[in-house]
Amino acid sequence: MRTQVCIIGGGPSGLLLSQLLHRKGIDSIVLERKTRDYVLGRIRAGILETGFVDLMREAGVGARMDAEGFTHTGTVIAYGEEEFGISFHDHTGKDVMVYGQTELTRDLYDARAAEGGNLVFNVDYVVIHDAKTDAPFVTYHVDGTEHRIDCDYIAGCDGFHGVSRQTIPTSVRREYEKVYPFGWLGVLSETPPVHDELIYSWSERGFALCSMRNANLSRYYIQCSLSDSPDDWSDGAFWSELKRRIPSRHADALVTGPSIEKSIAPLRSFVTEPMCWGRLFLCGDAAHIVPPTGAKGLNTAASDIHYLYHGLVQVYEDKDTAGLDAYSERALARIWKAERFSWSTTNLLHRYPDQSAFDLKMQRAEIDFLRSNDAAQKVFAQNYVGLPY
Amino acid sequence: MRTQVCIIGGGPSGLLLSQLLHRKGIDSIVLERKTRDYVLGRIRAGILETGFVDLMREAGVGARMDAEGFTHTGTVIAYGEEEFGISFHDHTGKDVMVYGQTELTRDLYDARAAEGGNLVFNVDYVVIHDAKTDAPFVTYHVDGTEHRIDCDYIAGCDGFHGVSRQTIPTSVRREYEKVYPFGWLGVLSETPPVHDELIYSWSERGFALCSMRNANLSRYYIQCSLSDSPDDWSDGAFWSELKRRIPSRHADALVTGPSIEKSIAPLRSFVTEPMCWGRLFLCGDAAHIVPPTGAKGLNTAASDIHYLYHGLVQVYEDKDTAGLDAYSERALARIWKAERFSWSTTNLLHRYPDQSAFDLKMQRAEIDFLRSNDAAQKVFAQNYVGLPY
Repeated sequence: MRTQVCIIGGGPSGLLLSQLLHRKGIDSIVLERKTRDYVLGRIRAGILETGFVDLMREAGVGARMDAEGFTHTGTVIAYGEEEFGISFHDHTGKDVMVYGQTELTRDLYDARAAEGGNLVFNVDYVVIHDAKTDAPFVTYHVDGTEHRIDCDYIAGCDGFHGVSRQTIPTSVRREYEKVYPFGWLGVLSETPPVHDELIYSWSERGFALCSMRNANLSRYYIQCSLSDSPDDWSDGAFWSELKRRIPSRHADALVTGPSIEKSIAPLRSFVTEPMCWGRLFLCGDAAHIVPPTGAKGLNTAASDIHYLYHGLVQVYEDKDTAGLDAYSERALARIWKAERFSWSTTNLLHRYPDQSAFDLKMQRAEIDFLRSNDAAQKVFAQNYVGLPY
Repeated sequence: MRTQVCIIGGGPSGLLLSQLLHRKGIDSIVLERKTRDYVLGRIRAGILETGFVDLMREAGVGARMDAEGFTHTGTVIAYGEEEFGISFHDHTGKDVMVYGQTELTRDLYDARAAEGGNLVFNVDYVVIHDAKTDAPFVTYHVDGTEHRIDCDYIAGCDGFHGVSRQTIPTSVRREYEKVYPFGWLGVLSETPPVHDELIYSWSERGFALCSMRNANLSRYYIQCSLSDSPDDWSDGAFWSELKRRIPSRHADALVTGPSIEKSIAPLRSFVTEPMCWGRLFLCGDAAHIVPPTGAKGLNTAASDIHYLYHGLVQVYEDKDTAGLDAYSERALARIWKAERFSWSTTNLLHRYPDQSAFDLKMQRAEIDFLRSNDAAQKVFAQNYVGLPY
């Protein structure tokens, strides 16, 4: 087989790139290790930056998002019994969209299917060949049979554990990592959200986040020990702990119910440089991970897709490789800013095992400053809605 | 002897308070452990916030400062060969004043002397008595003879090692401290400053600061090991290291000369709570220490003096103790914000022994963000010129 762009990974990044390219007449094939249902079963983020929302619309898949998504014009920061709001809209003129990754991925699958997109599922043994030449190709197995795709470019959208990053020789790769000494225990429940905006809550007992997917689907998180297992936490224990970590007026209003998903995610910051190697371009989790505080994970993937998409269009429409040549540098410049925001917001709101009394006072002083200072709120809001591409 | 306010400590804080009170007809006595010349020989900070400048003028001692001080409308942040300016004036409408602590202290001594201020030098064995009663008094020795001052209130302006803080029982005191794993090696030299604004310089080799006192008196600092001694650093070695830590266009322009003072200061963050105990009120270094990055040390003292001065005037003019009752809380609210700024600016610009490659990238990302983001520069500028009292 031959295509213009071989996209490894059928998650939202790969699908969005494929869909965007299709609308510019650029052909692609998407290779996914799992099934469509498996991908749709993953419970992930749901806060979309303005730039992501715009890309979905540009890809022609914004209709259901615009109809069913919730616009959030701000967020709440709580600490102990105190709380305050930060308006994204007032500070930036922009908002964020609450629309689950599952829904968004479904919309992308539906659009690709409707437009005859070439998606291959259940692929295995994916190998990237000759990425440093003008004639790269990808081999893979389906049901034990090897296939080969010749292409102009390869987009590595296959996540942290995928083959794309590992195809770049370690002599070329520089990797930066921070592992945080805690995880997030997340619960999904079919209950109305406790508040119409997200609540990021600092507490002496550890961080908590009240989030949501829609009017009857809530997503709550509490900071937990890395040694915890979801089985250690009954629903009752989870709700009880959550209530102790948010202001009592919210705890009193919280509607609890059975969890329909419960899992623990470790928190990690990770970046690999460079983000391209010859004709291979890394996107999203294949190149970088952020801790979830500040909701940048999916949005950083969208940022990469933005740069790669425009670079590829420039090649095919104008025979100009300037955008692709600059891809790694441009993508990384924005990624590091998102890494910074996610890292600093994580530091601000979590309890650390080795925190001194002074460190706790610094967290409190940062929160107090954020509460009282308009420019600091603007900085937070600008980062939250997404810095300009 | 009897006075209204007994001020322990004849550094700039105590003198400024004494002078301000005098102009409101409130009597004070200042007790200083050292001599006038010793106090004037201490080489300290020289960057005054707007609020400090206003207090000096209100105290009637602003004339020479206004004539000889230098207004700085901004500062330079450098990293490697890169640099950018942050305008205080554009972001806040305010500036800072460069005027050495030595000069300012001299002006205060001269004013107190001219107006018959009661300053006692060479005092020893200072003891604060009955601070929790309505009749506190202070005893001390001069030349082996004990003296006693009865007073209404006691201002503890006697620094980190003074008796004032230690008079507050440890059962009442809460202390917060962070010791940084490096020091600042400072050199004073009779040379023209390398630049007309301060240069805060991040470098792979460690932090450097190019500061000044006047047009022919430069003050330079480099981050050094806590195990270093000033004797380890010849003038030549200092200048050579400084040049390696600032952009080469500044290194090339640097005029070097013999050092007239060379010393190493450790970096520490420290706060004690509460800042009052009965009729004893702590001011400045007696209650808190900041690392020098961001020039907040002397300015936080001025902030305390502002609150205490207004509280005392309210008592003597209106018989209202509200200002004194709120002193600790108000002073601390501002102190913690200055502690936060000093801590975060120190973290931003110094090399740490245990820094990972990721940590270095976060420093770089913070600096890049500060360079590129207007609101972040405004936050920096607001903190630098001093948050509102």
